Amino acid sequence: MIYLDNAASTQIHEDVLEAMLPYLKEQYGNPSSIHRYGRLANKAIEKARKQIAMLINADSSEILLTSGGTESNNTALYGIAEKKPHSQIITSSIEHDAILEPCKKLAKDGFDVIYLPVDTHGVVNLSVLKNSLSDNTCLVSIMFGNNEMGTVEPIAQIAQLCNEQNIPFHTDAVQAVGKIPIDVKKLGVDLLSISSHKINGPKGIGALYIRKGIDINPIILGGGQEHGLRSGTENVANIVGFGKACELAKLNLSDNISHMKKLRDYLVAKILREIPSVILNGHVENRLPNNAHFTFLGVAGEDLIIKLDEYGIAASTGSACSVHTQKASHVLQAMGFSHEQITGSLRLTLGLFNNQQQIDETVNILKKVTAELRSVSPFKEKYSFN
Amino acid sequence: MIYLDNAASTQIHEDVLEAMLPYLKEQYGNPSSIHRYGRLANKAIEKARKQIAMLINADSSEILLTSGGTESNNTALYGIAEKKPHSQIITSSIEHDAILEPCKKLAKDGFDVIYLPVDTHGVVNLSVLKNSLSDNTCLVSIMFGNNEMGTVEPIAQIAQLCNEQNIPFHTDAVQAVGKIPIDVKKLGVDLLSISSHKINGPKGIGALYIRKGIDINPIILGGGQEHGLRSGTENVANIVGFGKACELAKLNLSDNISHMKKLRDYLVAKILREIPSVILNGHVENRLPNNAHFTFLGVAGEDLIIKLDEYGIAASTGSACSVHTQKASHVLQAMGFSHEQITGSLRLTLGLFNNQQQIDETVNILKKVTAELRSVSPFKEKYSFN
Repeated sequence: MIYLDNAASTQIHEDVLEAMLPYLKEQYGNPSSIHRYGRLANKAIEKARKQIAMLINADSSEILLTSGGTESNNTALYGIAEKKPHSQIITSSIEHDAILEPCKKLAKDGFDVIYLPVDTHGVVNLSVLKNSLSDNTCLVSIMFGNNEMGTVEPIAQIAQLCNEQNIPFHTDAVQAVGKIPIDVKKLGVDLLSISSHKINGPKGIGALYIRKGIDINPIILGGGQEHGLRSGTENVANIVGFGKACELAKLNLSDNISHMKKLRDYLVAKILREIPSVILNGHVENRLPNNAHFTFLGVAGEDLIIKLDEYGIAASTGSACSVHTQKASHVLQAMGFSHEQITGSLRLTLGLFNNQQQIDETVNILKKVTAELRSVSPFKEKYSFN
Repeated sequence: MIYLDNAASTQIHEDVLEAMLPYLKEQYGNPSSIHRYGRLANKAIEKARKQIAMLINADSSEILLTSGGTESNNTALYGIAEKKPHSQIITSSIEHDAILEPCKKLAKDGFDVIYLPVDTHGVVNLSVLKNSLSDNTCLVSIMFGNNEMGTVEPIAQIAQLCNEQNIPFHTDAVQAVGKIPIDVKKLGVDLLSISSHKINGPKGIGALYIRKGIDINPIILGGGQEHGLRSGTENVANIVGFGKACELAKLNLSDNISHMKKLRDYLVAKILREIPSVILNGHVENRLPNNAHFTFLGVAGEDLIIKLDEYGIAASTGSACSVHTQKASHVLQAMGFSHEQITGSLRLTLGLFNNQQQIDETVNILKKVTAELRSVSPFKEKYSFN
C-alpha cells in the first residue's frame, strides 16, 4: 500500500504511540482527581501542553486543548463572536467547512459574514480585506495553508492589518503546522487551530492557541476543565500523544519539510513530464511542502482514485470531509475553475513515511490508469487522447 | 496501589486496548476517505456503533458519537433547547455540572429552568415534576444514577410522565451504564448520555442516544460527520475501544454487577461496623452497585483522601470534576446536609479490578487515619473521640 493522503490523516509515529501507552494502561487517573493517579495524569497533560506550545512559540497557558481541529475552529468563531452580537466576521471563500459552516450559522444568528475572494492561485485578496475591516469587525479568520490545493496565505500581512486595528485574527493552521515554521508571536496571530492527527499524532485531539489577553466564551460547559474554557474529562493518552507529536514535529521540522518538499517536487515534475494534459493547481511557490494538486483533463478524479485504490494507492480528489456533502469543491470554484477542471481533480499529499520508490510506482500506475480512463473518456476527441 | 475512584475514571480493559491498537498503528485512515484506509476506518466505527447501541438496546442509527459524557450532555440540552427558544427546561438540583452549567447558560439566554428538589436520600420529587410539566416544557433532563452518592432515580416513572405529554426526556446515564441493565426502549427514554472511560474504555469518547424521531441541532459544525450532527474527524481508535468496552459491559453485566455489589456491601458493612461515627449517605436500595458514600463525622474528607493517598489508596470526596470550582457539594446541599456533614464526605467507588483483600486493607488503613485525624479534630469533644 502507498499512502498519499496525508492531508486527510497521518500514521501515528511509533514514538507517539509509545508515549501514549502508559496512559492507556496503568496511568488511568482522572486528571481532576487529587490522588496520585490524578496528579500523574495532570502532570502528563501539562507536559504535553508545553510541547504543543513550543511548536508554535506560544506559552503553555495559551494552549486550549480540544477534541480536534474542527472543535478548535468552532471555539474560535463562536467564542469570539458571542462577545459581540450582530457584528461582522471576515473569512475567505476557500476555508474548510469547519469554518464555513459555523459562519453560516452565525450569519443566521445576525452576524454579517464577509467571504474574501481569492485569485486563480487561491491567494486571498488583501485589498478587499483592508477595505472590509471596520470597528464592527469582531474577528478575521483566514486559513494558513489550504487543505485542497495547498496554497499558503499571507498570514503575517493579514495579521498586521488586523493588529493595526485591534481586531482579533484567527487562522486555521491544521494543514500548516508541522509543515511550515510557525511563530505565533512573530506572526502576530491571536488564535490558531491545530490538529494532532495531521502531524502523526492520534485522532480526536487538537488545540486552539489563544493569545494572552484574548477573551473567549466556551462552547462546552461542565466541570470547568481547561480553566472553564473546555469542560469534560481530558483525553489524557491522546493529549500525551499529541504533545509528543508536536515535540517530534519541532525537532525534525526542517528535515521533514525538506523530505516532503523533495518528494513532492519530484512527484510533480514526473507527473507533468510523463502524463500529458495535466495541470498543477494552486500556488507554485507559496505552497504547503507536502501538497500536490492536479487537474487531469478529461478524467473524473473520483474514477482516478478508485482505480488507484485498486492498485493499493491511497489518494483523494480534495477534502476528505467533503465526502458527506458530495458537493463540488468550493475552493476550486472560488479560484474560478470550470466544472470540467474541478471534476478532474487529484490531490496527492505526502508524509514522513513516503519514499521515492513509492512515487515512481505511483506515477507508473497513474500513467496506466489515466490512459485507460481517457481511452473511454467523453473528452477523448477534445483533447486528442489516443 | 488500591484504586477506589472508579466513578472518576476506570482502567482500560486489556481487551479494549487490544482492539484499539490496530487503529493506533497501521489502520490510520480518515473514515471519510473513499480509499481502502478510509473504508476500513469507517467499517470499524460502524461496528463500534452497533456494540454501543446493543448495550442499551438501541438501534445503531440512534447512536451519536461525541468526545465524551460532557459533550453528550451539552448536545442534548442545547440541541433540543435551540429548537424552542424561551421555553422551559426541567432538571434536578443534583445533576452533574455538565448539565447544570449549560442550564445556567440557557437560563441567561431566556429559558425558564426548573430544578427539581430531592429528598434526603437524593431521590427527585416526582410530584413537583408532574406539576411542572407543561406545553412550554421543551426538555426534561434527570440523571440516571448520581455520581456522588450513587442514588438511582426513578427513570421509568419520569420517562412515563414525559411520554404522556410528548415531552423529550434526557438522562445523563454516565454513571449508570454498565452498572445497571438499561433498555432505552422499555424505559421510554428519548436521549441518554454515555461515557466510555467510566466503563473501562478510553477517555475522550462518548455517545448520545437519540431516539428515532427526536430532532436535535448540532453544536459543532464542519465536515458533516455523524450525519451532520457532530463534525470533526472521528476518533477511530477510541471509538473502537469504546465499542469493545460496551460489548464487554453487556456480556459481563450481571457478573460485573454482582462483583461490585458484593464488594461494596462488604465494604459498607465493614466500615460501619469497625469505624464509629460514620454515616452512609444516599439511598440504601436504589443505588449504583459500585458506590459507597459516607460522612465521617469530625473529619475533613479532603484530609482523609490525602492521608489515604499516602497509603496508596485512591479515593475522593465527591465529583472529580468539582475540583476546579472548589465549591461544597451542591448534591449534598440539595439533600439538606449540613456544612459539617458535607465536609466529612468520603466516596469510595468500586470497579472490575478490585478485590476483597483490597477492601480489607482499605478499611484497616481508614480506621487508622480516621483515628489520627479525629485525635486532633476540633469536634473531638462533641463526638467524644478518644
